[in-house]
Amino acid sequence: MNFITIIDYIGTFAFAISGIRLASAKRFDWFGAYVVGFVTAVGGGTIRDLLLDVTPFWMQQSSYLVVTALALGFVILFGKYVIRLNNTFFIFDAIGLGLFAVVGIEKSIVHDYPIWVGIIMGTLTGAAGGVLRDTLINEVPLIFRKEIYALACVFGGLIYYLCLYLGMGAILTQIVAAFSVILARILAVKYHISLPNLKGEEGL
Amino acid sequence: MNFITIIDYIGTFAFAISGIRLASAKRFDWFGAYVVGFVTAVGGGTIRDLLLDVTPFWMQQSSYLVVTALALGFVILFGKYVIRLNNTFFIFDAIGLGLFAVVGIEKSIVHDYPIWVGIIMGTLTGAAGGVLRDTLINEVPLIFRKEIYALACVFGGLIYYLCLYLGMGAILTQIVAAFSVILARILAVKYHISLPNLKGEEGL
Amino acid sequence: MNFITIIDYIGTFAFAISGIRLASAKRFDWFGAYVVGFVTAVGGGTIRDLLLDVTPFWMQQSSYLVVTALALGFVILFGKYVIRLNNTFFIFDAIGLGLFAVVGIEKSIVHDYPIWVGIIMGTLTGAAGGVLRDTLINEVPLIFRKEIYALACVFGGLIYYLCLYLGMGAILTQIVAAFSVILARILAVKYHISLPNLKGEEGL
Repeated sequence: MNFITIIDYIGTFAFAISGIRLASAKRFDWFGAYVVGFVTAVGGGTIRDLLLDVTPFWMQQSSYLVVTALALGFVILFGKYVIRLNNTFFIFDAIGLGLFAVVGIEKSIVHDYPIWVGIIMGTLTGAAGGVLRDTLINEVPLIFRKEIYALACVFGGLIYYLCLYLGMGAILTQIVAAFSVILARILAVKYHISLPNLKGEEGL
Repeated sequence: MNFITIIDYIGTFAFAISGIRLASAKRFDWFGAYVVGFVTAVGGGTIRDLLLDVTPFWMQQSSYLVVTALALGFVILFGKYVIRLNNTFFIFDAIGLGLFAVVGIEKSIVHDYPIWVGIIMGTLTGAAGGVLRDTLINEVPLIFRKEIYALACVFGGLIYYLCLYLGMGAILTQIVAAFSVILARILAVKYHISLPNLKGEEGL
Repeated sequence: MNFITIIDYIGTFAFAISGIRLASAKRFDWFGAYVVGFVTAVGGGTIRDLLLDVTPFWMQQSSYLVVTALALGFVILFGKYVIRLNNTFFIFDAIGLGLFAVVGIEKSIVHDYPIWVGIIMGTLTGAAGGVLRDTLINEVPLIFRKEIYALACVFGGLIYYLCLYLGMGAILTQIVAAFSVILARILAVKYHISLPNLKGEEGL
C-alpha cells in the first residue's frame, strides 16, 4: 500500500462520509445511506470510465466497497460527533478532490485524448459524484450554486498541462496539479470566492 | 417461448406497471408514462450492461417495448381497478425482482467478474430501475427508505454463490437464488422488516 | 464548415440556451449554468453513444464546448432581452430537434441496428438532453407533461424509414425526416396538440 493508495482511500472515505451525512439528513436507512455514500465516492470516476469506455475502476478491486462500509460504520457509531470534525472532513474532501482530478486527467492521457478532454475528465472524476449524490437525495446539486468546487479541478487541470508543457517530470506534475486543486478549493472556501450567479428572468 | 421468458415478461410487466402508476399520480401524459414505465422495467439492466460493457439487452429484441406498451394499455383501460390488484402486482414485482437478480449475477459470471461484482450486478438489475423511476418523477428513491428491497437481491446473490460453492447444478442454483430473493422480499413486507434509519444531524 | 455543421451549431446553441435559462431561473452560478447548458445540448447524444458503445461525439471535437460558452456569454450579456427572442429560440430548438433526431437514426443505422432501435436513438438524441437538464435542476421533466416533443422525433423516425423503404436517396430522406420533426413540433405547439394525461389514482 503506497502513498497514493492511502490518499485515494482518504478521499474515498471523505466523499462517502459526505454522501452518508446528507442521506442521514433525509432519514435514509443504512442501505440507502451506503448506496448514496458509495455513489458519491465512485460516481464521478464511473461516469469518466463509461465515457472513456474502460471498465469502471471500482469493479476491479473491492476496496472502495470496504472503505464506504467503514464510512457508514463511522457515521453510525460517531454520528453526533461527526459535526465537530467538519474542518477535518473539509480538508480530507479537498485532498480527495485534488487526487481524483489528477487521476481523471491521467486516465484520459493514457487513452490519447486531447487536453480539453483531460480537464473535463479530471473535473468529472472530482465533482460528478457530488452531483449524482444530490440527484439521489432529490436536491439541486450544491456545486452549481456554492463556492468554487468543480472549477478548482478545471484550474488544477490547466496547471497539470502547463507543468507538462514546461517539461516537468510526471510525479512532480501530479503533485503540483493536485496541490493546485487543494489550494484553490481551500482558498475559495476561506475567502468565500464564488462565481457570479445568473439573474433569473421573470415569468420563465 | 420457454418458462424463463414468461417470467421475464411478467417481471417486466410488473415493473412497467409500477412506473406507469407513479407517473400517472404525477399527471404525466401517455408518452411520459410509457417512458417512465420502460425505464423502470429496463433501467436496472441497462446500467448493468453499460458497466459490463455489453449491448443493452433491450436493444436486441423489441419485446420489452411491447410489454411496456401492454402495461400502458392496461393502466389506461383498467386504471381504476388496478388498485384492487395491488397484491397481485406485489407478487409479480417480487417474482421479477428474483429473476432479474439472477439474470444480473449470471451476466457478470459470463464476463468473469468476481462474486462481489456479481452481487452488485444482480442488485442493480433488480433495484436500479426503481431508483431511475423515482429520479424521473422527481421523488426521493423509495428503496432508500422503505422495507427491504435491494437487500433481498444482495441476500439472493449470497445464496447463489453459496449454492455454486456447494456444487449445486446451474438450474437448481438459479431457482434457489431467485426463490430466496422472492421469499426475503415477501417476508420483509409481511413482517415490516426494515433496516434502521440514520438519525439526521441538526443544522446540516 | 458545411450546411449540416451550421445547423448542428444552431441546434446546440438553442439547446444550451434553454438549459442556461432554466439554470438562471434557479440562480445557478456561471459554472452551474454552463454545465446545465452543456448537458442539455450534448446529453441526449451522449446517452445514445453510450448505448451504441461508441465514443461520445463531443469528445472528438471541442466545438460543442465553445458553442455552449457562446450561449452562456449571450445569456449573461443579453439576459433581459432573451425573453423577447422566445419565438426565435423556439424555431432554433425545433430545427435542432429535427437535425438531432436524424443524426441519432443515422448513427444507429451505421451500427446495423433495426428500425425500432433507430427511432429510439433519434428520440433520445433529440429529447433526452432536456430530461437530464430537468433532473439537474430538480424539476419533473417537462417533456413528460407538455406538448408533443419527443413524439415529434418518433414521428420523424417513422417518416425516415418510410422514405428509405420507398427508395428515396439518403440526402432527401434526411431532409424530409428532419422537416417532419420540425413541422410536427411547430404544429403541436401552435395548435396545443398533446397526448391525454393519465388520471392519478387516489391514495397511491
